[in-house]
Amino acid sequence: MILINGMEDAAISAADRGLAYGDGVFRTIRVQDGHALQWSRHYAKLAADCKALRIPVPELETLNQDVMRISRAHSTCALKIIVTRGVGERGYAHAGVGAPTRILLSAPLPRYPSQCAELGVRIRLCRLKLADQPALAGVKHLNRLENVLARAEWTDSSIAEGIVRDRAENVIGGTMTNIFMVNGGVLATPRLDGCGIAGVTRDRIIETSARHGAPCEVTMLTWSDIVSAEEVFLVNSLIGVWPVCDIEGQLRRAGPFTRLAQRWLTLEDDAQAA
Amino acid sequence: MILINGMEDAAISAADRGLAYGDGVFRTIRVQDGHALQWSRHYAKLAADCKALRIPVPELETLNQDVMRISRAHSTCALKIIVTRGVGERGYAHAGVGAPTRILLSAPLPRYPSQCAELGVRIRLCRLKLADQPALAGVKHLNRLENVLARAEWTDSSIAEGIVRDRAENVIGGTMTNIFMVNGGVLATPRLDGCGIAGVTRDRIIETSARHGAPCEVTMLTWSDIVSAEEVFLVNSLIGVWPVCDIEGQLRRAGPFTRLAQRWLTLEDDAQAA
Repeated sequence: MILINGMEDAAISAADRGLAYGDGVFRTIRVQDGHALQWSRHYAKLAADCKALRIPVPELETLNQDVMRISRAHSTCALKIIVTRGVGERGYAHAGVGAPTRILLSAPLPRYPSQCAELGVRIRLCRLKLADQPALAGVKHLNRLENVLARAEWTDSSIAEGIVRDRAENVIGGTMTNIFMVNGGVLATPRLDGCGIAGVTRDRIIETSARHGAPCEVTMLTWSDIVSAEEVFLVNSLIGVWPVCDIEGQLRRAGPFTRLAQRWLTLEDDAQAA
Repeated sequence: MILINGMEDAAISAADRGLAYGDGVFRTIRVQDGHALQWSRHYAKLAADCKALRIPVPELETLNQDVMRISRAHSTCALKIIVTRGVGERGYAHAGVGAPTRILLSAPLPRYPSQCAELGVRIRLCRLKLADQPALAGVKHLNRLENVLARAEWTDSSIAEGIVRDRAENVIGGTMTNIFMVNGGVLATPRLDGCGIAGVTRDRIIETSARHGAPCEVTMLTWSDIVSAEEVFLVNSLIGVWPVCDIEGQLRRAGPFTRLAQRWLTLEDDAQAA
C-alpha cells in the first residue's frame, strides 16, 4: 500500500524535489500486530530531521492517520515514511515551494534468517569512505548514494552488513545499521558529528543502557577497536539487534551485553504491540 | 511536457530509487529553436555519469527520440533529463533492480534579466562547505542537498549566485554554475577531484580556450584568488557565460576574456541551432 498525501496512489509528481535533489527525509518503521513500533520516537526524529533541512514538519495528527491506515491494511510490515520539501519550480531555491509531500510505503518485512538474531551475522569492512558534512550529519535524508555505493561492494549473501568509515578512518556504522561494541565491560558507539545516521534504535540503546547503569560511550572508534572488541552488535528498527559473529573470518559468539540489548528492545516492543 | 520512459506522464513510481536514495543522474539542457544545444556532449556526460554509478546507460537512439519529442513540443525551453536506477525493492542493494527510469521535463527558460550576460552579476560567498567524496566528485547525481542548503543561505534577489568551497577552503564553484577566473592573462578554473559538478559548459570553455592558444589551468583556487582576479565569470548550459561584476560589493567590469568566452559559446550554439 502506498499513501501519498493521505491518498492511496502509487506515483508522485516527477517535479517533486525529493526526486530532483533528494530534498527530503525518511524513516523505516517496523509494524507489528497493527502497531507502528516506537512511533512517537520516529515522529520526533522525523520532525527533527525536517527542521534540520527547514522543511515544514507534517502535523503529528496527520501522519498518525496515515500510519494507522497502513497498519490496519498491513498489520505486520516494513513501513517507510518519506517527507519531501514538495513540488517545486526549477532550481535549488525553495522559497516558493508549496506543502511538503508525505509518502508512506508498506513492504513485507525483510525475511532475514532467524539465526541472524540468534547466532549472529557476518560483516565486512567497506572501501568507500563517508564524506564529512556536519550540516547533514545524523539526519536521515534522501541523499543516500554513499550507502548505495558501499552496499554495492559485495554480493556474497553470507555477508549481512558492510561497515563504513569516514575519511579519517573512524568507524561510523553499517550501510543500513548503527554499530555498538563492548570492551572491558564498557558499551560504545561511534560519534556521528560529521556523517552517518543517528537511528532511533541507536538512541534507545544509548538511553536504556544509561538507565540500567551501564552508560554507553559515544566516541571515536577505529576498525581495529571493532575487531578487538569483546562484543559487537548492529541495530536498526527492522532488525532490532544482530550480534556480530564473524568479522571477515574472525569468529566469535554473541556476548552477554548483546543479549541484554536484545531483551531490552524486545520487552519494550512487546509492550507496545500488546 | 513530461516524458517518463517515453510516455507522456507527470508521475513516477513512489518506489523509484531516484526518490528513495537520489540514485540517479541528470542534465539540464537549453533547447533553442527546436535544437537541444550541445546534445551530443550532454549525452556523453550523462553516459559517463551513469557509468560512474554503474547504472545501465540508456541508448542514444532512445534518448534522441525523447529529446526530439520535447523539442518539437517546446522549441525553446529548459530541458531536464533524469536517469534513475529504476524501481527497486526495499534496501540499498541494487542487484535485482530492473531497467533505469528516463524522465524528461521541459520548463520555460528561466527569465534572467539580459543585463546578467551584458553587465554581469553579483555573487556572494556561501558558508556551507562541500564534503569531499572522490567516488562521486564531478558527477551530476541526484544527491543535491548541499546545493539546496547553500542556495538557501540568501534571499536577496540582487545576488545571482553563491560560491561554495570545500572543507579545505578551496573554491569549487557556484550553487548552479562552474566558475572561471583570469589573472595575469591566464584562465583558471577549480579542480573537481573531491566535490563539485564538472559541467558541459565548463568542458567547452576548457577545450575552446586550449584550441585558441590560451589553455585553462585546472587548479586549486581560494576565495582571495577570486576576489583579486582581473576577471571572473560563471557558466552553465542555460545561462552560457555571466560576467561577475560585483563580488560582495567590490565592483568590476566584464573583461575581454569573458567577452571572448561568450562569443565562443554563442558562435557554436548559433551554428547548432541554425
